[in-house]
Amino acid sequence: MEWVKIIGYLAAMLTTLSFLPQAIKVISTRNTQGISRLMYIMFVTGLALWLVYGLLIGDRAVSMANLLTLILALPILLMTLRRQ
Amino acid sequence: MEWVKIIGYLAAMLTTLSFLPQAIKVISTRNTQGISRLMYIMFVTGLALWLVYGLLIGDRAVSMANLLTLILALPILLMTLRRQ
Repeated sequence: MEWVKIIGYLAAMLTTLSFLPQAIKVISTRNTQGISRLMYIMFVTGLALWLVYGLLIGDRAVSMANLLTLILALPILLMTLRRQ
Repeated sequence: MEWVKIIGYLAAMLTTLSFLPQAIKVISTRNTQGISRLMYIMFVTGLALWLVYGLLIGDRAVSMANLLTLILALPILLMTLRRQ
């Protein structure tokens, strides 16, 4: 694999998996103070559209990466929505 | 413009601009409680690699979208790093 592709895969891995520590933190502490609810409403909607886009153009990398990020970002959104 | 492309642009706009309300919230309240520092370390590193990747393959949409997200996510990272 050429190194340009490695940079791409590394970038995709980092931006996708970055939501894992946030999801773990929010689920374990139940503390969403400081987290913008509007950010996660926009972000999760955007991820769902990326997923649809990836399926429509038949690009598995786009659909799979965004499905995984969606799975990680969704519990964060749900926790911020439960906040008063 | 075909509607599949519109979905792609809308998705890109939402996932990119979603970091704007979080950046505004963090800068105005100085409250980063609940926000995962590790998430933003990984996310900003990933965005920088996406930017490099976009420049290397000569894809302006990839480099510009990730540069914009980087500009929005960087102050969030800096604020979480300042937290004790």
